[in-house]
Amino acid sequence: MIKSLITSVTLALAFTLAGNVLASDASPQKRRVVLQVNDNDEKTWKHALTLAENMQVNAGGKDKIEVEIVAMSPGISMVGNNSSVADRVSKAAENGILVRACGNTMSVIGWGPEKLASGVKTVPFGALEIVDRQNEGWAYIKP
Amino acid sequence: MIKSLITSVTLALAFTLAGNVLASDASPQKRRVVLQVNDNDEKTWKHALTLAENMQVNAGGKDKIEVEIVAMSPGISMVGNNSSVADRVSKAAENGILVRACGNTMSVIGWGPEKLASGVKTVPFGALEIVDRQNEGWAYIKP
Amino acid sequence: MIKSLITSVTLALAFTLAGNVLASDASPQKRRVVLQVNDNDEKTWKHALTLAENMQVNAGGKDKIEVEIVAMSPGISMVGNNSSVADRVSKAAENGILVRACGNTMSVIGWGPEKLASGVKTVPFGALEIVDRQNEGWAYIKP
Repeated sequence: MIKSLITSVTLALAFTLAGNVLASDASPQKRRVVLQVNDNDEKTWKHALTLAENMQVNAGGKDKIEVEIVAMSPGISMVGNNSSVADRVSKAAENGILVRACGNTMSVIGWGPEKLASGVKTVPFGALEIVDRQNEGWAYIKP
Repeated sequence: MIKSLITSVTLALAFTLAGNVLASDASPQKRRVVLQVNDNDEKTWKHALTLAENMQVNAGGKDKIEVEIVAMSPGISMVGNNSSVADRVSKAAENGILVRACGNTMSVIGWGPEKLASGVKTVPFGALEIVDRQNEGWAYIKP
Repeated sequence: MIKSLITSVTLALAFTLAGNVLASDASPQKRRVVLQVNDNDEKTWKHALTLAENMQVNAGGKDKIEVEIVAMSPGISMVGNNSSVADRVSKAAENGILVRACGNTMSVIGWGPEKLASGVKTVPFGALEIVDRQNEGWAYIKP
């Protein structure tokens, strides 16, 4: 009886340990990556969108990877509704790519949410969003 | 008695496990981020300084975030005492932003510490500093 | 006897816990870093190679650091056998720097493996390679 009690304890702890190891596993099944766009260069914008779209396809679809694009500083223009890539930005958002605009940059240049391409959401501060994502285990790529 | 002994073991281990989970928590209360400056472009320098300053303010002050700027390769010019942004660099350092110059780059171009803007310190090798910071859990941003 | 059994269980678990903590240690002895090259600019290519070479030397040799260069998008030209830095790329590979070409980019531009400088290997998708490396704990630097 005592031995069986000890065995239960051991088993219970073994499961807890296994859970703990899984929780801190550096290779989660679902990949997560944040892309930073901070310049006013259409080439960078297209590169970011192509990377986001292709990563989604090559990872096996939007259920297998979370991709977030953070537009900030002069890069905010990418996600405006007058942007040369506005349609592609909105389509990316429809396809599950998170497109985020830096609220701090928006307030500096006097943009309200109506200036954004459809599907784009704001975050309080783009650079801190990128820091927080990395702290949560997301990878970072600057296209 | 035996049951109570087993309970003690279980409790002790539960606390240890909890500590272990907390120790590997990916979201520490204090944010930490290292910014890389490796080009000789005043626009990049100003962008790095603005990001550093604004992140400090928006994170809730210098007690809430550690920001480090690493200047290396052609970017070393940013932190020289003749740099166009030398005053801003020194003010950032006074405000708790860590500004670091790559010692390897300095030796290649024959700079001693007297060439640096006030408040700037050297690290042996900028790129390894950036690697080590990330290994310590700091986020990385290339402005 | 029972007490000794419990002690064994405790000890066994303590060792397991220690192993778990070590496994999730954020500062491994061997540094690991992935460098991203995604533009068609010889200055970036040389910068990436210089960083890789210098990090290897300054970290204490190739046994002390793993450095990987991922060439993708327009940056794929860096690792072609007609590249202006092809010899340096191959020498880096000989010296233990992992040089990887994005297979997706290669198929878009119709390159087979015979187009690559000697020592360069392909990965299915460069950006996902960079995401996966970061998930495995590698640092990231964009030269």
